[in-house]
Amino acid sequence: MGNKEERVVPVPAINRMPFYLAFVKSLKRAGKEYVSSTLIADYMGIDSTQVTKDLSYTDIVGKTRVGYEIDSFITILNDFLGFSTTDAAFLVGAGSLGSALLHDTGLLHFGLDIDTAFDVDNEKIGQTVNNIEILHIDQFRDMAAAKNVKIGIISVPVAHAQSVADLMVAWGIKAIWNFTPSRLKVPDGIIVEDTMMYSNLAVLFNRLHKQENK
Amino acid sequence: MGNKEERVVPVPAINRMPFYLAFVKSLKRAGKEYVSSTLIADYMGIDSTQVTKDLSYTDIVGKTRVGYEIDSFITILNDFLGFSTTDAAFLVGAGSLGSALLHDTGLLHFGLDIDTAFDVDNEKIGQTVNNIEILHIDQFRDMAAAKNVKIGIISVPVAHAQSVADLMVAWGIKAIWNFTPSRLKVPDGIIVEDTMMYSNLAVLFNRLHKQENK
Repeated sequence: MGNKEERVVPVPAINRMPFYLAFVKSLKRAGKEYVSSTLIADYMGIDSTQVTKDLSYTDIVGKTRVGYEIDSFITILNDFLGFSTTDAAFLVGAGSLGSALLHDTGLLHFGLDIDTAFDVDNEKIGQTVNNIEILHIDQFRDMAAAKNVKIGIISVPVAHAQSVADLMVAWGIKAIWNFTPSRLKVPDGIIVEDTMMYSNLAVLFNRLHKQENK
Repeated sequence: MGNKEERVVPVPAINRMPFYLAFVKSLKRAGKEYVSSTLIADYMGIDSTQVTKDLSYTDIVGKTRVGYEIDSFITILNDFLGFSTTDAAFLVGAGSLGSALLHDTGLLHFGLDIDTAFDVDNEKIGQTVNNIEILHIDQFRDMAAAKNVKIGIISVPVAHAQSVADLMVAWGIKAIWNFTPSRLKVPDGIIVEDTMMYSNLAVLFNRLHKQENK
């Protein structure tokens, strides 16, 4: 196990794992007890060597001929992906997208607890969305220290994204989940993960409009 | 222009373009009139040949020495990405994530109008979220035909994702935006775009927890 912890898991491998997890959970619901890498590979439309390679980063061990035992597969992968423990996060920017994230209780099931939201708009400050309080950003620093929060979510207008990121880093945030189309510059060791929903939308539009113009 | 329309634009290129767009808009706000591919490349942390290659898929034309004219850059890229025209979409699954998407009015600014939501839960049917009506899924077929809706958004529990996709295809949907961790099987010619927020979350957790364990 020692060696495994040293290895950096490639992003594409981690990105595939929630799909593996969802598929294996569906097999469990269907009453299955074992799953093979070939079955997962067929479902994903990829090669089975890719599946075994991805899973080699985790502590999941298959048995010859029978494959992976489903219950332990689910437990180990949930742990590995960080979905079974809860991390607290602060969200900055309680506008349209920010409020949407506050409404998504699914995040809590995946181990992310948005503890508090912050904004600079006096209309929003003092309100709650889905029982999450919206405070003035000036309170971020002290609260992050008091609650030992390490994850910051940025859902502000893109023009303010970099300055919010700079503040977050100054205030002790170690991992930023960025929902803006901004390439954030952060010091070494700070983690940034971008979720750009509108990029996916652009791909979808591009393909659809091309098809319609045929 | 004829040739450009024939070329399939690679997904990574399209994924970078909303970042280019946001950056160039920030330059416009700062009063700039021209932007070079080198400046965009520096911002993105990529090579400038990649920027010029990406932009060659669009009708954006640079001038020697001065670069790209910012106003036309923004107009052309907005059009190219499909953000300047509005496409209607139907959403199926008005649970936590689905409601979150209904709250995100930012989607409309990027050209996606969620016209109606559908569910099977009697508690939800007849309600509205952010002025969007939630109807029973049985009404999807006739309404999609009547309104000529081509885009379907899936935000149901993962166990139901494939059957919802099958229904959507049967009911005339041409492009599916999938928010579930399900690998959807669809006929050739149907577009599927996955947005798996929880995959990004898993990467963030993985990196953060590895750092904390050091």
